[in-house]
Amino acid sequence: MQKKDTFVALQNFYLTMPISKAQIKRIKSLHQSKFRASEGLFLVEGKKGVEEALASSWRIRSVYSTQAEWCDNHKSAEWINIQEMQQISALNSPSEHLACVEMKETEQVLMEDKILYLDGIRDPGNLGTIIRSAHWFGWKQLVLSTDCVDYTNPKVVQSTMGSIFHVTLKIDEDESFLSRASDERMQIWGADLKGHDLRKTQPAKNALLVIGSESHGIRDQSAQWIKERVNITNIGGAESLNAAIAASIILYQWS
Amino acid sequence: MQKKDTFVALQNFYLTMPISKAQIKRIKSLHQSKFRASEGLFLVEGKKGVEEALASSWRIRSVYSTQAEWCDNHKSAEWINIQEMQQISALNSPSEHLACVEMKETEQVLMEDKILYLDGIRDPGNLGTIIRSAHWFGWKQLVLSTDCVDYTNPKVVQSTMGSIFHVTLKIDEDESFLSRASDERMQIWGADLKGHDLRKTQPAKNALLVIGSESHGIRDQSAQWIKERVNITNIGGAESLNAAIAASIILYQWS
Repeated sequence: MQKKDTFVALQNFYLTMPISKAQIKRIKSLHQSKFRASEGLFLVEGKKGVEEALASSWRIRSVYSTQAEWCDNHKSAEWINIQEMQQISALNSPSEHLACVEMKETEQVLMEDKILYLDGIRDPGNLGTIIRSAHWFGWKQLVLSTDCVDYTNPKVVQSTMGSIFHVTLKIDEDESFLSRASDERMQIWGADLKGHDLRKTQPAKNALLVIGSESHGIRDQSAQWIKERVNITNIGGAESLNAAIAASIILYQWS
Repeated sequence: MQKKDTFVALQNFYLTMPISKAQIKRIKSLHQSKFRASEGLFLVEGKKGVEEALASSWRIRSVYSTQAEWCDNHKSAEWINIQEMQQISALNSPSEHLACVEMKETEQVLMEDKILYLDGIRDPGNLGTIIRSAHWFGWKQLVLSTDCVDYTNPKVVQSTMGSIFHVTLKIDEDESFLSRASDERMQIWGADLKGHDLRKTQPAKNALLVIGSESHGIRDQSAQWIKERVNITNIGGAESLNAAIAASIILYQWS
């Protein structure tokens, strides 16, 4: 070990704030959905995500980083060592930053603005990517059917790249949202291989788009409310598009 | 155990073709890149992918399935039991079908048709999804820089959903492809936040699009050949789009 390495190791040993075993245990419990629900907390990992959380209106319970300099610039952060980060991280390759964020009461979803309804999206990467694209294209109201993957799942949160803190996410607990949207005369669209060519569609200001899962499509209980169907023309002959890709292309075309 | 279950268990025990330990070992070795390269074989898993492989011009070394009926309809398939499938599968949740496919000599990439150049795409899901979208939109020539993830990686193959058997994939071994494309007067585009608004662009018939990784963008050695830059307008304020999403939206707009 060279002198400089020894210094860094010593510095890391003496100056980082040791994190208690109880804290580690509590943070690790948040890797599981049931404890996130009971504690009302979830984890965000990665510099981008943590900084977006800090800059947002969401309440942050605690922040950890292995970077001393970053901690100097973010007073609420606790400087921990890499071994501790590995213990609390839910990722295979832990990043240098992690925050525990308080869940929010769901904000109101306005029936006069655009809404994306996600129907049974079970893949965490797909859900996170859709949230990120929705933020990019300014579709900031998302409603999730109860059989979507938990949006506080660490892989979902990571895939959103911080966009989770900039959109409204509502779980359709009693599966009544589409019925109410229909009563409120929302224009309800579904992504469907038998739909109109996307390029020829023009959604109303109060459009609602339903995206189903790749394996099961849109469930019958949701499909019954759909009035208009939209399709992305297949040129090369592939059997299907990834659900996050299809959703993002429709948002692109409509924005 | 009910009578029917007993029958199925016995049937499974007596009638499946036992797979040898040597076979299992050989197939498992293909989970690793170096053995795929030395054996010239890779795995495809999932019904859709396996059926696409069988229907394609690619040579199949062996096929395994846990479904008796499917094996009846696919004479080359060996019927194995679920425990054996779990042993040979590279996936956390094995599917019911797996095939060993021979790698192909790279086909010629034609400089007079559209080409997608993937520059340092390291995420297997992203690479697979891009291949799938490229197939959907009819961009069937893909060139990969040497630092892209190995396209025979099981997660890449799975994410392509069989589209890997319908496109031309070439590794840019000596990193000379873009220089040659430039000499051949290909119109070389790059996806870049500082580029022209995608909606206002119109690629030539012989366009080549370079997509970089999310974390590092397009590497300098590739960027030097780019003549035109294209950007997807950011409406909602997200910091970036997923690389597979950005690539797919550009292919959609241009197809």
